[in-house]
Amino acid sequence: MPDRETTVARLRELVEDFVARRDWHQFHTPKNLAMSLAIEAAELMEHFQWLTAEQSCAVVGEPKKLAEVSEELADVLCYALAMANELGIDLSAAIQAKLAKNEQKYPADQYRGRFGPDDPNTAGR
Amino acid sequence: MPDRETTVARLRELVEDFVARRDWHQFHTPKNLAMSLAIEAAELMEHFQWLTAEQSCAVVGEPKKLAEVSEELADVLCYALAMANELGIDLSAAIQAKLAKNEQKYPADQYRGRFGPDDPNTAGR
Amino acid sequence: MPDRETTVARLRELVEDFVARRDWHQFHTPKNLAMSLAIEAAELMEHFQWLTAEQSCAVVGEPKKLAEVSEELADVLCYALAMANELGIDLSAAIQAKLAKNEQKYPADQYRGRFGPDDPNTAGR
Amino acid sequence: MPDRETTVARLRELVEDFVARRDWHQFHTPKNLAMSLAIEAAELMEHFQWLTAEQSCAVVGEPKKLAEVSEELADVLCYALAMANELGIDLSAAIQAKLAKNEQKYPADQYRGRFGPDDPNTAGR
Repeated sequence: MPDRETTVARLRELVEDFVARRDWHQFHTPKNLAMSLAIEAAELMEHFQWLTAEQSCAVVGEPKKLAEVSEELADVLCYALAMANELGIDLSAAIQAKLAKNEQKYPADQYRGRFGPDDPNTAGR
Repeated sequence: MPDRETTVARLRELVEDFVARRDWHQFHTPKNLAMSLAIEAAELMEHFQWLTAEQSCAVVGEPKKLAEVSEELADVLCYALAMANELGIDLSAAIQAKLAKNEQKYPADQYRGRFGPDDPNTAGR
Repeated sequence: MPDRETTVARLRELVEDFVARRDWHQFHTPKNLAMSLAIEAAELMEHFQWLTAEQSCAVVGEPKKLAEVSEELADVLCYALAMANELGIDLSAAIQAKLAKNEQKYPADQYRGRFGPDDPNTAGR
Repeated sequence: MPDRETTVARLRELVEDFVARRDWHQFHTPKNLAMSLAIEAAELMEHFQWLTAEQSCAVVGEPKKLAEVSEELADVLCYALAMANELGIDLSAAIQAKLAKNEQKYPADQYRGRFGPDDPNTAGR
């Protein structure tokens, strides 16, 4: 069931089912889930901790490392889906709303090739 | 376009389009994206920092706070989608694989109502 | 050499010596050290992830758990000291300056028993 | 009162005094302090998020940026000191014990110029 065919709602159901069968909703306060998501994000980051920028890009061609990174990314997403379930947040709507907001904040023609106003590469622009 | 009708691939396309139109792939090394995801996860956590467990659950009934949390969660997910795009990871497959692995690691009948072997509530079991 | 007798400069020297003898300054860019500090902070947080507030306080009386927490806290501090070394930051001066700033931002008489303006316990004040 | 003359115990007293005068011990559960420390670590990381390794090193010569980084680092340390106060941890002893442990784990002669066994620069050694 690849990304092409899988709805976000379907993934939310899979996580909900996993949590409910263990009676884990009692632990899934938004506070605990936010902590858990941050912990998994740090474990993902750990894979790139000492790598140079170039070495981190090369991970795309290293199957073993890529599998580990995929698993950490899945952990992050499972907690994001669990939080959406607890709080009744529609993630697709939230993402689309945020992209629309960022479209205004970072107009494509002003930010092409610049990550922000402080970008030292384009400070003289 | 709610979760019920939105595929993960569609969300990946929206993020890819946003990034490509700004020529931001140059900044989107996996190392930078992992850092960014962790930063957004911390901003999400900040909303629950000083709340009790109960107060964090009550956020579900506070529209203003809930909108802020939704936006931070969207930020986290945008970076997760961007990383999947850079590394060619199928997120739906990764999530299903991880849930299957956790199904083995935390058998439902052994972990019902326990978050782990160290759960002080059930240490005597 | 306990806290009572140990200067911050002495701790910085111990970390500097450890790093220099391994020729690790090349890895200790401020970017990498900030990532490392955040990773260790998440490992510290992991010890409290599923605990209630009360259970987290009880750790003070659990020697094994307390030793693990102490070790994670030491990891966090070693990276903070390493960053101070790389950037030439006087930590004692920085801490005193920040406390003075917070003294203005959170006047003791206004914030007694309140963590901030959003504290739901004192919203009606 | 610079690092050269300031003991860790003195910094702990300054934080303790700040917390006590606001009656904030009630919020300073180890769980909340671990979250807070991780949030501040992410804010520190944010200053280096989009910088290259070289740009992050150049911060040492940029007084405005350096002052911002110093302040974030102070925030991290204040929560570390607060946690030590709540849990009765001697930080100097913890740091020395951890450095001694790492001295065994990473013998200087084997890890000179290598960040770990996975360092891709020295994989052929």
